Amino acid sequence: MTYCVGVKLEEGLIFASDSRTHAGVDNYAKFCKMTVFERPGDRVLVLLSSGGLAATQAVINVLRKRASAEPPHIWSAASMFDVANLVSDAMRHIERRDGPFLESGGLTFNASFIVGGQIAGEEMRLFRIYAEGNFIEAGTDTPFLQTGEAKYGKPILDLAVTSRATLQDATKCVLVSFDSTMLSNLSVGRPIDLLCYSRDSLRVTMKRRFDVDDIYFDALTQQWLAGTRKVFRELPSLEW
Amino acid sequence: MTYCVGVKLEEGLIFASDSRTHAGVDNYAKFCKMTVFERPGDRVLVLLSSGGLAATQAVINVLRKRASAEPPHIWSAASMFDVANLVSDAMRHIERRDGPFLESGGLTFNASFIVGGQIAGEEMRLFRIYAEGNFIEAGTDTPFLQTGEAKYGKPILDLAVTSRATLQDATKCVLVSFDSTMLSNLSVGRPIDLLCYSRDSLRVTMKRRFDVDDIYFDALTQQWLAGTRKVFRELPSLEW
Repeated sequence: MTYCVGVKLEEGLIFASDSRTHAGVDNYAKFCKMTVFERPGDRVLVLLSSGGLAATQAVINVLRKRASAEPPHIWSAASMFDVANLVSDAMRHIERRDGPFLESGGLTFNASFIVGGQIAGEEMRLFRIYAEGNFIEAGTDTPFLQTGEAKYGKPILDLAVTSRATLQDATKCVLVSFDSTMLSNLSVGRPIDLLCYSRDSLRVTMKRRFDVDDIYFDALTQQWLAGTRKVFRELPSLEW
Repeated sequence: MTYCVGVKLEEGLIFASDSRTHAGVDNYAKFCKMTVFERPGDRVLVLLSSGGLAATQAVINVLRKRASAEPPHIWSAASMFDVANLVSDAMRHIERRDGPFLESGGLTFNASFIVGGQIAGEEMRLFRIYAEGNFIEAGTDTPFLQTGEAKYGKPILDLAVTSRATLQDATKCVLVSFDSTMLSNLSVGRPIDLLCYSRDSLRVTMKRRFDVDDIYFDALTQQWLAGTRKVFRELPSLEW
């Protein structure tokens, strides 16, 4: 499995992805699922990938290859909507190429992306692109989008991630959401890649990897555990 | 869907079930999914049902019918293991009867149960019976068993439900786990039926229903929300 989260706040954007891939529990590996395209002062685009690794890597490679050829491509796109469509086009290109061969092996094309960022002159935007290439956009009512193993981590995001949350608070919440997910699903694992984007900065200044021995991550999740256990003890008990 | 939780603590047992059934979002209803068999001083048996309502109701009816005939039945069973086998037998009976007809409609027999309690002379025990009639038993390492929509509520149970938790604290945790689940899955809904069993009491003294306007339930979940938001604010922020 995989776990990826994208958040759109008034203050900025948060992107986080785990890095575990597997073909059965006896065959697992680490791959970064976060791809960043940055041209400081002009645009920051972030992609988080879920699904088959062959499919997601192929899509990223197509995007990179096209980016160094004639427009339209991710560097020429005038809006995030155009970027989402370019990712969708690359996905459909790979599906057309690989789909029939996958089908002969009883498989289907399986890749989906969280895509977000900001282009100079436009607001920040955040999309989730499904395997079929169609997509949805986050809004103020639903400020976060998840892919992969989304259920274990959702209640924690629901607690504290609203559009008006600060980047700092929402980032803590996203990391705890990863911890909850990793506790219950072995196919989601550290390192976790995190990128926080500050609105209108048009550059990447906060990018960080949390490995298995990360002191901050461990302190955060232990304090969360201790803090919530205290909340439970202090909740009113049921009178019979 | 459905959400049911059974917990085995040193102090006692907790059983909780939602009461929503549906055949599509345009056709939902309320049915109690908790069945109690009690003979004070001798035995307390609790069943929580998940799956198709026709199947689970049929199984409960078979158990009741057999209970008023010749042994073996739930009143004669000498151990909770025997009770679990009797439930399993009733499930297989219904599957044999209904299975071929369901199959002709493209369906399969779909019923599973959480079964727990205590019989005089034996320790408390807690089982989860799968649709095929085989079953597992909770232990000290894994003191809770869930059925139905289990993922949203699991991280909260993981926070505070250990074998050594008090009945009071674990009950609060189970109720918050239901709240988290209902927030994300419309097919899980109140009323919630709750039964807390005190070890070696061999009688039911704590049974309660939480309806949609339950003052305690609403206060509990609001304080949980406020408490955890405070924990988030107080967690160490990431330094960049």
